[in-house]
Amino acid sequence: MLSVWVVSRSCPDSMHVLMNYCSHCGASVTHKIPLGDNLPRHVCDQCERIHYHNPKIVAGCIPEWEDQILLCRRAIEPRLGLWTFPAGFMELGESTEQAAVRETLEEAHADVRITGLYAVLSLPNIGQVYLVFRGRMKTPVFQAGPESLDVRLFSLSDIPWETMAFPVVSEALRRYVADAKAGEFRLHLDSLPDKPAF
Amino acid sequence: MLSVWVVSRSCPDSMHVLMNYCSHCGASVTHKIPLGDNLPRHVCDQCERIHYHNPKIVAGCIPEWEDQILLCRRAIEPRLGLWTFPAGFMELGESTEQAAVRETLEEAHADVRITGLYAVLSLPNIGQVYLVFRGRMKTPVFQAGPESLDVRLFSLSDIPWETMAFPVVSEALRRYVADAKAGEFRLHLDSLPDKPAF
Repeated sequence: MLSVWVVSRSCPDSMHVLMNYCSHCGASVTHKIPLGDNLPRHVCDQCERIHYHNPKIVAGCIPEWEDQILLCRRAIEPRLGLWTFPAGFMELGESTEQAAVRETLEEAHADVRITGLYAVLSLPNIGQVYLVFRGRMKTPVFQAGPESLDVRLFSLSDIPWETMAFPVVSEALRRYVADAKAGEFRLHLDSLPDKPAF
Repeated sequence: MLSVWVVSRSCPDSMHVLMNYCSHCGASVTHKIPLGDNLPRHVCDQCERIHYHNPKIVAGCIPEWEDQILLCRRAIEPRLGLWTFPAGFMELGESTEQAAVRETLEEAHADVRITGLYAVLSLPNIGQVYLVFRGRMKTPVFQAGPESLDVRLFSLSDIPWETMAFPVVSEALRRYVADAKAGEFRLHLDSLPDKPAF
């Protein structure tokens, strides 16, 4: 079977999904624009199935306890050893809020009640959309989960800006701190130029 | 090569992604829980690549012109002949707002300026998240795109409730009309039990 890996100009290189074979019938695929479509897709050379690849949702939570927030130091790559709020890919079968609660439980062993959506940050260069929620910790109990080296409550004046894991995390927290100072949290809707290197 | 199609209990049947072969090397895959994970994934029997499947974002827009909104009558299955606001799967390389603007242009040939996020509605039973925006039409110009039979401006008292395409569309519009009557649009964050039959 022929391995086909064609780069199109319709979206950035970094996002091209590597697909050589049809996941349904195992035949080779060709990256081409199907009839009636306007974007190239991976199309099976045998069963003609069209394979669509779409952005993924990263559900995150800023866990709050009194006037502090809970951050995790990553125990896994990428960005091992750096800080983030709990966040991860949403799974099939859950809601966005459930995903944020689950990630907080898995990474920080903290139980939160989601109080609202704080930010929708698109990262078009890497095919991700961050949905960042605010969550009120039910108790001040927390502990590093298997993907965290350390979990700590930080005052907003003590956030470890120099050792944050991802630009999108820094950006969300920067806005959060500004809103907290201003005394009003509003919904943030924006697009960030994160590169895959981060 | 063996075709493997195992149903797990971790998420509803309707969402199981059919994957028989590794899209990278073409070998068979097994649906099992990888080491260090807690959910079953499709894992390649040869190259051991893990294939993740995640919810998809449907970006929608409620296009507004004065006190009317623009709806499209679907020219394609599913729900051919029924009404919806412009909405469709977000593509790689765009932001959520760009996806909503693009869908409005494609389905209704209408040019909108996004004014805010109106609703985030998770459909965990079918692995979709609707991000519904409000959009102000720049001009009262519109026309049926290739996926629409008809496009019309509706007063909020004339919405064709009996012939709406999807429950999630009815639900978003129901909330929209209630908010319009109350004189205040707030962000709606919820989870709906849409079934794949719709």
